[in-house]
Amino acid sequence: MKIHQHLRHLCPLIATLVVPSISHAQNVRPAPNGIEYPQGLTNWRVIGTSIRNDNNTQRVILGNSIAIKAARAKTDKLHWPEGAILAKLVWKNETLATWKAATVPGDFMHAEIMVRDTKKYSATKGWGYARWTGLDLKPHGQNSSFVETCANCHKAAQNTAFVFTQPARLP
Amino acid sequence: MKIHQHLRHLCPLIATLVVPSISHAQNVRPAPNGIEYPQGLTNWRVIGTSIRNDNNTQRVILGNSIAIKAARAKTDKLHWPEGAILAKLVWKNETLATWKAATVPGDFMHAEIMVRDTKKYSATKGWGYARWTGLDLKPHGQNSSFVETCANCHKAAQNTAFVFTQPARLP
Repeated sequence: MKIHQHLRHLCPLIATLVVPSISHAQNVRPAPNGIEYPQGLTNWRVIGTSIRNDNNTQRVILGNSIAIKAARAKTDKLHWPEGAILAKLVWKNETLATWKAATVPGDFMHAEIMVRDTKKYSATKGWGYARWTGLDLKPHGQNSSFVETCANCHKAAQNTAFVFTQPARLP
Repeated sequence: MKIHQHLRHLCPLIATLVVPSISHAQNVRPAPNGIEYPQGLTNWRVIGTSIRNDNNTQRVILGNSIAIKAARAKTDKLHWPEGAILAKLVWKNETLATWKAATVPGDFMHAEIMVRDTKKYSATKGWGYARWTGLDLKPHGQNSSFVETCANCHKAAQNTAFVFTQPARLP
């Protein structure tokens, strides 16, 4: 009880941020390259959104606390520090029944992350990649060579540290 | 120091969720109907995303802890309880320079919320509406009658408790 009072006193944010039963992902196996699914990923804060018109999907981009701090820093020079993790939750597009001009998330496709560790992942430009498919979060890839596809695609974003996402402007 | 240890012990989530300087909105004036801008709104968790093809915008839908608990409940019957707040952050669409088939957030348009209070907002079907425009979050509406436009539009969603957003499927 005393500790609860401390909690309330110290961090009024806690009451609004910590809610029981907020994530259902459990016992998720790591990706073939050993990267673990971050528990509580769906509770992370927003960096941006994106629609891919080439494959009829939409996504929200979230970040762990290190990534959020970097993404929301008031600076002209975006820098993703060691330990930053960006996550994408991806859905197939669907038309909203109550507003036909709106395209909303349909089937859940996958969760994917990129982890900043310039030493550990030097072979893939300082980012470790992982993906889990479907609501049951099945690890993507037969073996660790799946990251070649990720890294090859991300070469298109070489001028932005191999990150496609540019943080959305936030008030 | 002791309290910090308690914090770490009790809630490992805290370290990942509470970060300083995560919101820049300060001194935001209330909407003309008295609804206050929720401080820390941009730190709320995700309910879904949406693209409106009729006005070239995309948005992320967030919720306060009451709304998140409702949105993520494993039930067939979605129920928005008293105190639930849904928030939309809305951007103009922009093409991503590094992936031309991707549509990403451009200029920030507005933040808007709907607050569940069936008594207080009985005239607008139990939801209180408010919007703040631009990165400086200028309250929308000359006077409190602006909510008529909101409520009229939301009539299209009368079969889903006047809420357009259906929570995205999450792992």
